[in-house]
This record gives sequence, C-alpha cells and structure tokens, in this order.
Amino acid sequence: MRSAVDLFDTVVVRLGGEIGIKAPWTRKQYERRLVSNIKTALKCHNLPCLALVRTAGRLYIRTEHAEETARKMSRVFGISSLSPAIQTSSSLDDILEVSAELAGLRFEGGRSFAVRCRRVGKHPYTSQDLCRKIGERITALFPQSKLRVDLKNPEQAVQVEVRDDKAYLFTDVIKGVGGLPLGTQPKLVCLLKGDIQSAVACWMTMKRGCPAILVYIENSVMATRENTRRTQCLAQTLMKWNVGFPRRLRMIRFDCSLKKTLEEFSLDSAVLLRKRLMLRSAQRIAEKESAEGIVTADTLGRRAHQTIQSFKILDEAARGFPVYRPLVGLDDEEIVAAAMAIGLERTVTKKIDHVEPNIRVGLEKVREIERELNIERIVERAVESLKILEL
Amino acid sequence: MRSAVDLFDTVVVRLGGEIGIKAPWTRKQYERRLVSNIKTALKCHNLPCLALVRTAGRLYIRTEHAEETARKMSRVFGISSLSPAIQTSSSLDDILEVSAELAGLRFEGGRSFAVRCRRVGKHPYTSQDLCRKIGERITALFPQSKLRVDLKNPEQAVQVEVRDDKAYLFTDVIKGVGGLPLGTQPKLVCLLKGDIQSAVACWMTMKRGCPAILVYIENSVMATRENTRRTQCLAQTLMKWNVGFPRRLRMIRFDCSLKKTLEEFSLDSAVLLRKRLMLRSAQRIAEKESAEGIVTADTLGRRAHQTIQSFKILDEAARGFPVYRPLVGLDDEEIVAAAMAIGLERTVTKKIDHVEPNIRVGLEKVREIERELNIERIVERAVESLKILEL
Repeated sequence: MRSAVDLFDTVVVRLGGEIGIKAPWTRKQYERRLVSNIKTALKCHNLPCLALVRTAGRLYIRTEHAEETARKMSRVFGISSLSPAIQTSSSLDDILEVSAELAGLRFEGGRSFAVRCRRVGKHPYTSQDLCRKIGERITALFPQSKLRVDLKNPEQAVQVEVRDDKAYLFTDVIKGVGGLPLGTQPKLVCLLKGDIQSAVACWMTMKRGCPAILVYIENSVMATRENTRRTQCLAQTLMKWNVGFPRRLRMIRFDCSLKKTLEEFSLDSAVLLRKRLMLRSAQRIAEKESAEGIVTADTLGRRAHQTIQSFKILDEAARGFPVYRPLVGLDDEEIVAAAMAIGLERTVTKKIDHVEPNIRVGLEKVREIERELNIERIVERAVESLKILEL
Repeated sequence: MRSAVDLFDTVVVRLGGEIGIKAPWTRKQYERRLVSNIKTALKCHNLPCLALVRTAGRLYIRTEHAEETARKMSRVFGISSLSPAIQTSSSLDDILEVSAELAGLRFEGGRSFAVRCRRVGKHPYTSQDLCRKIGERITALFPQSKLRVDLKNPEQAVQVEVRDDKAYLFTDVIKGVGGLPLGTQPKLVCLLKGDIQSAVACWMTMKRGCPAILVYIENSVMATRENTRRTQCLAQTLMKWNVGFPRRLRMIRFDCSLKKTLEEFSLDSAVLLRKRLMLRSAQRIAEKESAEGIVTADTLGRRAHQTIQSFKILDEAARGFPVYRPLVGLDDEEIVAAAMAIGLERTVTKKIDHVEPNIRVGLEKVREIERELNIERIVERAVESLKILEL
C-alpha cells in the first residue's frame, strides 16, 4: 500500500460563506483576491504548487505536500475549511479503489464509520449508489474488526466530492480562519501598544479584509525598552497574517521635551493629549499611505479613561478619519482567547494600582492647549522622521 | 437524608474579573450597581431573597431557591460564575457533616472525585487539613463503590470556601455571562432592524454596561409587517437583559410620501439617504434621552454599501454623536453563534440576488439633496410623534 505522501495530491479549499452570498461581480473579485493571497502564502512557506483550480465555492490546490499545505493555508483569511484530498477520475472503479486505499490508510478497525458524497455534473451513478458501494468496499476491507456504519455520529468518515469528470476523496476537514480575503477592503492604520489588546483589534480588521499599516509610538508614556521589544514581537506575529502586503512596523519618536511638557498638565488632560497625539500621528500616516481609517484597541469601560465622552474628544483629533474600535463590545476574557488563537504571546493584565484619571476636561480646553503647544507642527516633524522596520 | 431543596440555601456569585482590577472607588460603584441589578432581576423572576451579602470579589444570595436563582442570575451582566451552595459555620465538625450530606446527594459511586478548599480568615485548620479530612469522610460514605481521589481530572468535586466564621460548600459552577454591570456606562441608542445582526450589536454594548434605548423605523425600505413583528420579538428577548432599565421599543413612522421621493434618486444615493435618516432619528432620540452614542450593526464588507467610505458619510448625519459598530470585526458565523447564546430566534441570511449599489455618491451631494428635502424638519416631526411600545 502506498504511503500518505504519495496518495494525497490535492487540497480542497472551501470559501467562506460570506463570499458565496455576494453578487456575482463582487464574488469574482473576492475569489481572485483569495487565489492571489493563497499563491503568495504558498511562496512564503516555500510550498510548491502544481496548479490552482477555481470552481464555484471551491479551490483545488494541486500539490505534493497536501497535509502541510492545508494546515498552513488554514491561516489565510477568507477560507472556511480545507481538506488534504486524493484526486481521481469520476469513474466508479477509480473512486472505489481510491476510497479503499484511503480507508486502509486512515481508518481504525472496531470504530464506526460513514461515507458522505456530494456530486455536481452527470454521472452513471447517484450519490446514494456511490455511498453504498464505497461502504461495502470498506466493510470488506476490515473483515475481522466489525467496522460498523453509523451515519449520525461516525467516529471516522470518507468523504467524496465528484465534480464533473473529477473526484476528490478525503477524511479530514481542517477549520479555516474565516473572514474576508485580505485586500478586499481598504487599508487601515493600526496603533500598536505592546499589549495583546491592540494586536487583537488590528487582527480583527485584517480578518474583515483590511490590510494593516502598523504604527508604534516609541516614546509614549508606556514605551519602555521592554515594551518596544514586545511590540516588535507582536508585530512580527501579526504580519504573518498580512499575506500579500508589506510586513512593516512604523515607529515614531517624539522629542523628549514633549513628554516633560505634557507632564505639567493635569493627569486627565495629559492622558487625552497623549492619546490625541497618537491619533494625529496615525491620521497623518493614513493620509500618506491612502489608508481610510484608524484602528484602536479601546473597549468600553475597561480603563477609567475609556469612556464614551473621551472617545468623542479623541475622535476629533483624527480630523475626519473614521476611528474603528473592534473591541468595543468584547470582554477581557474574549480578547485573551482571540489572542491565543492568533498565536500572540500572552501579556499579563496588571491590576491597576495607581488611580486612573476620570476625564473631566472638555474638548475646547484640550484644543486650546494643543494650539499653544503647536502640536500639529510637532506631529508633522515626528511623522516625517519615522523609522520603518521591515519584519 | 434531606433533599436538595432543604440543603441549598445560598448562591455564591463570583464577580467578573474586570471589576476586580478596577481602582477601589470605581470597584465599589460597580459592585453596588451589580447588587442593585441582581435585586431587580430577582424581583422580575419572582425569586424571593432572604439576604444579599457583599464581600471582596463575592456576593452571597441567601435564598430557598438556590438552584433556580443561580441559573437565572447567570444572565445578569458582570457575573463571572455562580454556585448553588450550602452555608454553614466555619467549625470543622459542621463543614465535615455538610460535606458528607452534599456528597451523599450529588456524588455517584465508582467515579473519581476531588475536594477543593479556599480559606480567608483565621481557623484552627489549614486548607490542606480540611481537604484531607473531607476526603476521608466522603470515602467512608461510599465504602463499597471504590470512590477514588483524582486531584487532576476529577469527575466530581466538593468545593469549600471558608470566609471568617462562615463556610460555603458546593459542587456545581455555572458560567455567568460576564461583561460589566448594566448602568456602569452611559446609555446608547440602538437601531433595530428585525435581523439578528442589529440585536447582537445592541446586546454587545449592553454587555459592556450600556443600557439600551431601542429604536425601530417602522417604514424603512425593509419594514414589512413581518419585519415589524420580528423586531418586536427580538426587542422582547433583548429587553430581558436590560435589567433595571425601562423595557421599551421606540417606533418611528415617516410620511409615506418620503419613501416615494427617495426612490426617485439613484440607488446608491437612496441607500445613503435612508441610512442617514435612521441615524438622524437615532441622534435626536439620543439627545432627548441623554444617551451618549448610537449603535449600528454594520460590519466591514458584509454588504456592498458597508464600506469605510460610506461609514464616513453616515457618521456625519449623527451630528457629532459617536456611532459604535461592535460587529465591525466579526464574521457572520460569529454573529449567529452570539445570537444563539443570547436566545434570539434565528433569522435567515438570504442570498442577495438584487445588485447592491456600490456607494459612488459623495457627502456634498447627499447633503445638498437633504437640504432640498428639508430632511431635518421631516425627522423632527417623525421623532415627535414616535410610538413607545412597553415590552
């Protein structure tokens, strides 16, 4: 009997359900983008691909490394699930032979099994015929071990998809990450802060199709050397998902005197001024890079300054650029779970023992201070001299 | 032996982890709000409560209906988990006797078990002593059935929490919904549309502590009689979570002539005009009701008009009120899963077979049309005559 490496020659890729319900023209654009992203991802992972075939709702990657390809491609946005499969002709004999090989390789005796068939096109057999005949063939393979059929809750299954003159057989279904193909939505600037929150917020918009432009303020109040290192780590993990788009981290450094100046104001003013500074920087980069919005990690009520009132004051600093807060309705626990799924290194949520300011200062006051500091000029200069880290 | 009804007399309520990391003053406010919400919820469910005791990180509800109370209160925002428990004194004899009763009632012979203890205060025994002695007592209870101890993966467990002169014993931990206590964040106006998306968006902000003011436009383009009925159903389910705040649905009806007028414009203009009309109405209600923002169900790229460009044009109609889109980073699949958890009736996502417009019209053009239609006046009149449905 041949080994798995010889047998599996194809990966069946199922597209995300949201792509399927699009109007035909849009669907085509989305599918094209997905194909191009898969090709890029294959290249990144040094996985050679013999051919990539697109049909309604499915892609077929022809490859000698089906298992590894399926596992790696499960992290490309827009894919609902994948299966390492064996391709054969749609002739009954071929399908029966391959199904026996597959079961011999993958099935364990003494456990229940099922056969599932899906068929598109004209064939001299029905799907039910096919299931029954494959079932008989497999049962005959395990004469001693009482392999019994269980259509409802089988412990193992052979699945067959017949498409016109081809058939694909497989046993495993690997869950894909879902979402929309990266690049089907506009670019967004994401403010990273060295915590998992900002990385998860960024990832969520990437998952919805928006390529990310990562920005880190090197000397914000939180920015210790440790934090900068952590941000680079997070950025590196995040950028593995940014398939087909530049893998970069933009680092901005403000003049040290500014930090001191800000410290002279009341605590709540200083918090707002710093956060507005970040949004201003993000907005300028968005403008330069033709990004259409800014992503921040704010949730409601997580920190004392994350109130709706202060969001309003912050948004104003983005000068008309929309600010997205994908975490706005999520709990801490849910964000941590997402971070684990993304593959981010866990950062500890510390108990906040210093008193955090409630925001009592108004927009007008903040703007007045900013005018006096000539903040626009400061931001312009800082953004002009930003450092780009290739990841 | 006594029955479960006699035994369980307390519900141990564990507060959400995010409350625990707040600064002391804020934490106190949050805990007070949670206590008040629990009291309201108990009243709603006709569950009498003998006392409600607050200690660090825990609440104890004294009740004769511990099982039902724990199950029902698991849907109050801000609770991490709950256990129907038996309260006794912290004397070793009392604890041993109650643990034997509890194991007799809940344990099955032949399965592995563990004892877990947490202790706060001064006692003549250590936690380890307690665990060991309870373990011996329970093992002696099941002499024939080989009840074996498994500290790592027990099939059943008795847990003891000793707090000063009291002890609480329980076996079950019921997961709470999490989030922040409702009312710890400002009110938000939520636009309902008869689909699960808008209901989930609303629920997510409620979960983060924002009481919801539900608004439905009765004769928007989607509003069939069926849709109105469905919205009322959704609103009813949603409002069960709005503990301690009015359970209402605000229904707005526009003059029929407006619908016809809008149809005369290009498809993309009409979509934007309609959606801006909804936001304008929401904004006026927000102003009236001192709500501080608006929640919509938009996700990125789900529909052809849900683009970042059109979000910008929409937000402008909210006249400075922040618009929250908690679904912005979620997949369809994730939204459906949330809807099931909330208890919403599933609505079917239809394949879109009409061509949806890509938004090509700009903000200036839309504003010009609105000025000509005198849209402000139209909205004002519609909002003045809104109908309030008590749920």
